[in-house]
Amino acid sequence: MLSYCVRNVLCTLKIPPCSATLTLQHSRRHCSTSSSEDLVSTLLQLCVDRHYVSPGQTNTELFQRGMSCVYGPLGMELRRNLLEQWWHSMTSSSAQVFGINTLSSSKDAAADGGGQLRIVESDYLKHTLEQKELSKEQLIQEVQALIQRSPSLRTDFLQGALEQYVPSLELVNRKLPFGLAESGLCFQLSDGSGCPAEVTQTSLVWFCSPRTSSQWLDHWARQRLKWWRKFARSPSDFSSSDVPVEELEGAASRGVKIIYSFPWGQEPLETLWSRGHSELLQTHKGVRSKLQQLKKQDSKQKLLRRKVLKLHPVLAPVKVALDIGRGATMELRQVCEGLLQEFMEAKIPAWPGYLETLPTSMEQLNAKYDEMGVLFTVVIGENTLESGLLQVRSRDTTIRETKHISEIKNFLSRYISAADNI
Amino acid sequence: MLSYCVRNVLCTLKIPPCSATLTLQHSRRHCSTSSSEDLVSTLLQLCVDRHYVSPGQTNTELFQRGMSCVYGPLGMELRRNLLEQWWHSMTSSSAQVFGINTLSSSKDAAADGGGQLRIVESDYLKHTLEQKELSKEQLIQEVQALIQRSPSLRTDFLQGALEQYVPSLELVNRKLPFGLAESGLCFQLSDGSGCPAEVTQTSLVWFCSPRTSSQWLDHWARQRLKWWRKFARSPSDFSSSDVPVEELEGAASRGVKIIYSFPWGQEPLETLWSRGHSELLQTHKGVRSKLQQLKKQDSKQKLLRRKVLKLHPVLAPVKVALDIGRGATMELRQVCEGLLQEFMEAKIPAWPGYLETLPTSMEQLNAKYDEMGVLFTVVIGENTLESGLLQVRSRDTTIRETKHISEIKNFLSRYISAADNI
Repeated sequence: MLSYCVRNVLCTLKIPPCSATLTLQHSRRHCSTSSSEDLVSTLLQLCVDRHYVSPGQTNTELFQRGMSCVYGPLGMELRRNLLEQWWHSMTSSSAQVFGINTLSSSKDAAADGGGQLRIVESDYLKHTLEQKELSKEQLIQEVQALIQRSPSLRTDFLQGALEQYVPSLELVNRKLPFGLAESGLCFQLSDGSGCPAEVTQTSLVWFCSPRTSSQWLDHWARQRLKWWRKFARSPSDFSSSDVPVEELEGAASRGVKIIYSFPWGQEPLETLWSRGHSELLQTHKGVRSKLQQLKKQDSKQKLLRRKVLKLHPVLAPVKVALDIGRGATMELRQVCEGLLQEFMEAKIPAWPGYLETLPTSMEQLNAKYDEMGVLFTVVIGENTLESGLLQVRSRDTTIRETKHISEIKNFLSRYISAADNI
Repeated sequence: MLSYCVRNVLCTLKIPPCSATLTLQHSRRHCSTSSSEDLVSTLLQLCVDRHYVSPGQTNTELFQRGMSCVYGPLGMELRRNLLEQWWHSMTSSSAQVFGINTLSSSKDAAADGGGQLRIVESDYLKHTLEQKELSKEQLIQEVQALIQRSPSLRTDFLQGALEQYVPSLELVNRKLPFGLAESGLCFQLSDGSGCPAEVTQTSLVWFCSPRTSSQWLDHWARQRLKWWRKFARSPSDFSSSDVPVEELEGAASRGVKIIYSFPWGQEPLETLWSRGHSELLQTHKGVRSKLQQLKKQDSKQKLLRRKVLKLHPVLAPVKVALDIGRGATMELRQVCEGLLQEFMEAKIPAWPGYLETLPTSMEQLNAKYDEMGVLFTVVIGENTLESGLLQVRSRDTTIRETKHISEIKNFLSRYISAADNI
C-alpha cells in the first residue's frame, strides 16, 4: 500500500482576481503626464465606455479593489482569454498537471476559511427565530446549531486540491511529482464591513518530494514570471522575490512573490508557497480507508463485457492515448515524448500511457481506454523506430490500422473536425 | 431617448447542471440487458474509476441528482468541452449574442430566489448572539437585520441579465433583437433539508419585440434541439414540446421543453420561456437615470489624445472590426457578412461595425476601436467590390495597408499565432 510520508510539498499559485490588471497597467502608460488618480479614473471610464466593465459606482469600486465585478461583453472575453492562457500554460508544460473541479461550498466544518462564510437559508432561520416557546438561551443555541449545519464557502482552492490528492495518485502511477490545477470562484471575508466579496482565482497545487521542493518552487516561479512577461508591453516591470521569513504563511517554509511595478509602486501579483506536508496529512487522517475506495475489481472479470464511454469526439476529454509495445524502452519513450509534444501544440489532448510502468496486457489497456472514452490508442513499437510505422486503434470500431508517424497528427485533427461538422 | 415599452420578451435556456448527463445516457445504451438501477450503479462506478467523478458516497449522490459535484481530471475536461461547445453554438449563430459575467452574490434584497440564500459571516453572527444586554426580542431583531444586510446568492442568471439590458443596448445600436449569454455557478434551494446545493448552469436571455417573440422561441428551441442531437448517439431520442398552459412559470406566456427519452422514461433537459416584459420593467424602474450614465462625452474632446488599450493580441477580446466605406451599402454589407462568417469559422472574434447605422467619421471609429483594444480594422469599400482589395488598419502602428480579401483571414491568423509564439 501507499505510504504518505514522502509526499509533502505544495505550492499554491494565484493570479490576481481582477483579470483586467494587465489592461490597467498597459493603458496607464499612455497618459504618463497626468496624476495617478486621474489615470485610474480615466481608465475606469474607458473600461465602462468600452464594455469591459459594467457601469455603476459599486461595480467599478469592486473592479478597482481587484474583486470580481460585473463584466461587460468585452471584459468577459478578456477574462475568458486570460483564464484560457493560464490553463494552457499549466497543462501544456512538461510537468504533469491535471485539472480538477471541486465544489465552492462544503458541509465539512473544517473547510478552509475556518468555515467563516456560511450559506444560510433565510426561511429556515426565520422559522427558528419564530419559535415562541424557546428561552433566549435556547434560541441562541438553536441559531448556533443551524449555522454549524450550514455549508461553508471556500476562500481558496487549497483544501479542495488536498482532498483530491488520493484519488489523483492513481492517475500518475502513484509517482510524484504532479499537480492539480483549478480556476473559478472563491469568496473573501470582508475586512470588517460584514459584506464578503467574490474573487476569480486560479491555483496550482504541486505535489513533490521534500528533497526537490525548493527546485520546483524556483521552476514554477520562473514559469509564472515568464507567463506574465509574455503578455506585457514592458516585461522588465515584472520581477520575483523571496518572501521574508517573518511573513511566511502558516506551515510554509518558503515563499516567492511575483511583483509588478505599478506607476505608484511595487505590488505583488501572486505568491507561490512551499507549504510542507502538515495540511495534507491533516486532510487525509483516514487515508488508508480512502485508499481502499480505489481498490480495483479483478481485471479479468471486467473484460467479460466491453464497456465503452462513447462520448462524441468533440466532447471526449482525451482524444488519443500513447503507449509503447515491445522494444528498446528508452528509445520508444523518446518517440512518445516527441509525439506528445506535437499533439499538445496542435491542442489534441493526449494521454501519456507510456509512463505507466506496471506491466499490463494490450487487452487490459484497451478496456481501460474504452472506459475512459479515449478515441484512439497509438502504439509505438520497435517497428516504429525502423520504418516510422505505428498502430492506431479506434475506440468505436476497435479496428487497428497501420499509419506512418508523420501523418498521425493530421489524421486526428481531421477526424475531430469532421465529427464537429456533421 | 430610448423608450422601453417595446422591448419585452426573454427566453431563458438552461442545460442541465450535470454536464455528464450525455455521458450517462450514452454508456447506458451499451448494457441494455441489465436493470435500470444496475446500469446506473455500473455507470457511476465507471465514472469514478475513470476519473470523471471524484470518489465518495456524497459526491456520487450529488452527481446522480444532477447537481455540481467534485469532478476528476477527465470529468473536468468533459465539462470544459461541453461549456465550450455551448458557448460556441451561442455566439457563432447568426443572431447577435454577447457574453456577460455577473456576480453570483448580490447586496440587492430583490435579487432572484427572493434572497432566500444568504452569505453570513459566522463571527459576525456569533458577536450578535453574545450581546448579553439584549432582550430576546431585541436579539431576534438584530439577527433579522444582520440577515437582511447579508449578500444573497443567485439561483439563476435571469436577474443579472435583466440588469445588463440597459448597458448592452448601446452595443447593438439600441436595436432589438439581441441576447445575453452566461454560464457558471448558481445555487439551489434545498428541498427541506436546509442544505442548498451548487449547479453549473448556462443561460441565454434573448430580448426581442413582442411581435416576433413566438418565432424567436421556435428558432431557439430548434437550435437547442439541434445542439443536443449533434452529440447524441441516437438523435431521435431528443424531442421538444410546448409546456402546458397550467404549468407556465410566473409571467411566461409560452414555454418549450427539450426532452430526452431515458431508459426509464422521458425527462426534460432544459426549458425555454417566453417571459413577457414585466420582470424587465421591474428591474429598470429607474431606467432614465441609468441611461444617463451611458451619456458620452463630446467626441472631439476625446480625440485630443489617442487612448489605446494595448492588450496582447492573444488576450484582446476583439481581434478585428469590420466596417464599410462609401458605396452601395447593401452589397458592401453582404461582403462583410461573408467575411464575418469566415472569421467566425476560423475562431477569430470579429466586431460587426458595419451594422452601426449612425453616421460616424473614420477618425471617430478608429478612436473607438483603439479604446476597445481591437487589433485591426478592416474597411470594405466600392473598390473591394471591383478588385477585391480592402484597407487594413493596425491598432498598434496606425498604419493602413491594402490587402486582397482572400488573404485577410490567413493574415490575421498568422499575426495572432506569431504573437502567441514569441
